[in-house]
Amino acid sequence: MKSDIPQLMIDRDLDAIVVYGSTDASSDLAYLTGGAHLEGALFLQTRAGDAALFSSVLERENAQATGYPVRLWSDFPFSRYLKETGNDPLAARVAMWRDIFTAYGVRGRVGFYGMSDMGFAWRFLSALDEALPDIQVMGEIPPNLFGSARETKDAREIEMMRAAGKAATAVIANTFDFLSSHRTRRDTLITEDGRPLTIGDVKAFIRLELARRNLDEVHENIFSQGRDAGVPHNAGNYEAPLQLGQTIIFDIFPRDRATGYFHDITRTFFLGYAPDELAEKWLDVKRVFDEVMADIRVGEPGGKYQQMTCDLFEMMNYPTICSDPQTTVGYIHSLGHGVGLDIHENPRLSTFGRQTLLKPGHVVSVEPGLYYPDDGWGVRIEDTIAFDEKGEIINLSDFPYEMVIPVR
Amino acid sequence: MKSDIPQLMIDRDLDAIVVYGSTDASSDLAYLTGGAHLEGALFLQTRAGDAALFSSVLERENAQATGYPVRLWSDFPFSRYLKETGNDPLAARVAMWRDIFTAYGVRGRVGFYGMSDMGFAWRFLSALDEALPDIQVMGEIPPNLFGSARETKDAREIEMMRAAGKAATAVIANTFDFLSSHRTRRDTLITEDGRPLTIGDVKAFIRLELARRNLDEVHENIFSQGRDAGVPHNAGNYEAPLQLGQTIIFDIFPRDRATGYFHDITRTFFLGYAPDELAEKWLDVKRVFDEVMADIRVGEPGGKYQQMTCDLFEMMNYPTICSDPQTTVGYIHSLGHGVGLDIHENPRLSTFGRQTLLKPGHVVSVEPGLYYPDDGWGVRIEDTIAFDEKGEIINLSDFPYEMVIPVR
Repeated sequence: MKSDIPQLMIDRDLDAIVVYGSTDASSDLAYLTGGAHLEGALFLQTRAGDAALFSSVLERENAQATGYPVRLWSDFPFSRYLKETGNDPLAARVAMWRDIFTAYGVRGRVGFYGMSDMGFAWRFLSALDEALPDIQVMGEIPPNLFGSARETKDAREIEMMRAAGKAATAVIANTFDFLSSHRTRRDTLITEDGRPLTIGDVKAFIRLELARRNLDEVHENIFSQGRDAGVPHNAGNYEAPLQLGQTIIFDIFPRDRATGYFHDITRTFFLGYAPDELAEKWLDVKRVFDEVMADIRVGEPGGKYQQMTCDLFEMMNYPTICSDPQTTVGYIHSLGHGVGLDIHENPRLSTFGRQTLLKPGHVVSVEPGLYYPDDGWGVRIEDTIAFDEKGEIINLSDFPYEMVIPVR
Repeated sequence: MKSDIPQLMIDRDLDAIVVYGSTDASSDLAYLTGGAHLEGALFLQTRAGDAALFSSVLERENAQATGYPVRLWSDFPFSRYLKETGNDPLAARVAMWRDIFTAYGVRGRVGFYGMSDMGFAWRFLSALDEALPDIQVMGEIPPNLFGSARETKDAREIEMMRAAGKAATAVIANTFDFLSSHRTRRDTLITEDGRPLTIGDVKAFIRLELARRNLDEVHENIFSQGRDAGVPHNAGNYEAPLQLGQTIIFDIFPRDRATGYFHDITRTFFLGYAPDELAEKWLDVKRVFDEVMADIRVGEPGGKYQQMTCDLFEMMNYPTICSDPQTTVGYIHSLGHGVGLDIHENPRLSTFGRQTLLKPGHVVSVEPGLYYPDDGWGVRIEDTIAFDEKGEIINLSDFPYEMVIPVR
């Protein structure tokens, strides 16, 4: 939670933190500024709690709306520093930041955050570290301070995520109704004017549904059928007509423009009917989903549920990533991930990396799946759940698990 | 242009380039991969021209669609490196990249690109630089290699940008018609059911128009009225009813999902009527816009037109950023910026920084404006133009410069 930041600074022995970038690209900056649009911003905070937010004159009111003391970049005009350094853009930047740090008492161990070009960050921070003897540049391997703060949501954030879930679920519901309203010809859905309904048509429908609910499709949603459903991040083939009796993975992960929070939900369904063999696969995934959902709780490490998922699938004789990290069929990803201002954040429900214990305020996706592209199918079922202050589960993806969508 | 990359590597004496990140966040990666969705990808290319694209198994087909030789991360399993390094995530990453670089003959001066957390980039690349004696980490202060390559668009890119311009212009046109279709009550527009039409209503309309045309609102569009129009990046007050006789700045900068290219266009208009005094201001901006558009040509430095804009506004007695970098009224930003896979890229039409000569393939916005929030107004007029292979201007924002939108 945001209120953890002072303690997280102490844990890391940081004297100050600096977050640089734009709020659209840097979710850590968006976290601090609560949705204000800022393009070239600099946030700094000392361990004593002094904070400042630098913005351009164009965005001064957006910056002021955050409640932080605002300073304009033009108070430290880059053109002047360029002149002073004989037009050396690196030296000019270093001189400018030196003056800013001096003005705000930023010194000692300083943690740097925010999204930048990798090479630029390395070169600029190396130069800063060398030129400013009072500053010791600190960088973190993930999960960093913000990853740790953000992985636990406070009650207000969970309310915002509940709203995002409601809106995303409504898109799923309306898309199901839209599909169900179509007639069939042989094994294909057809439109009013008698041509085959394509995945591109469905994507256009979904896009309008998202826009109506103020949801942004930051990363393209997935609506993939048959063999495409067998490759987890295949977004779907726009030209393909919708077919009866195929697995269709429908996975959306939009961001609510009003709050910046994502939601992640997946359903797999068949149009018209489910062939017996594929219905079995669907039920296998659903069984694993149900077992995990019945067991998942605070106090346990996230990796436990990835292992449980692998064990269950292996008992059913599916290969898994746990016993074969290189498998491309069977269960080939992790069980879930934190959801928040990024679609993928902490904590992770995976067996490698840091083992976080699940706790109140965590919001995670739970998404077992099976993938067999060469056999023409894939199945994934996913909800996003939150653990409330008491550790109780709130399912933010309140939508039934339909296997078959009836069509006309 | 993409075909410049080998020469740009030679100019910088780079033996290899590495681009790391996700295509949604790193436009340099999107540039290389042509719109494929890749979340944790690594692109590398040696001076000899050998290239490879690393992707996760989940996205292997997206990666394959780029045409580059694809390698799966699981061939260099991070879990194995974690084990080997006693669970040290930094050392594990360094060891993994060392093996990848060895496998692909990446050595010597290596330029690193792509968006990452700043502190992570610094720490990881510092460790890499220290641990791998064959590698010399290189980072660039902007404009970097990709900034230089991307600032010149080839004919195919200009066609894609023309399509984005057409779609964005259609949104402007339909929004004008939408506004014009409304009745008035006193000085306010009202809806069918008699309540005031708000900026929030207009934004909802715009959002659907964008979605219909497959345009993403990556950064929130601007629809700001009266005093809000006097602060350039004020996105507009959702609650405010639309008023007659006020300046309304309507600035959209959506990204075409099909190609990834942005378009940038602004119109300022009045609903119903323009008060004489404000009409004068509008005409002043239009006059500057026209003079710049009549003069702008290849072979001249971008900064020339910023200076021309300042000179023209100063002749009209407006303060400008050229003579007073700290002014918050008058003309307070630069004249324009390159547009492409980022909304703001090279070249810049501003007086400071590197002075690029305009040349065929450049695509820039031209956007003079005046801002007086305390007097309750702001005006900006903007088109995005491209210079074709012969250096002729193609105006990608083909829409008339209406001052007044008639209402019923």
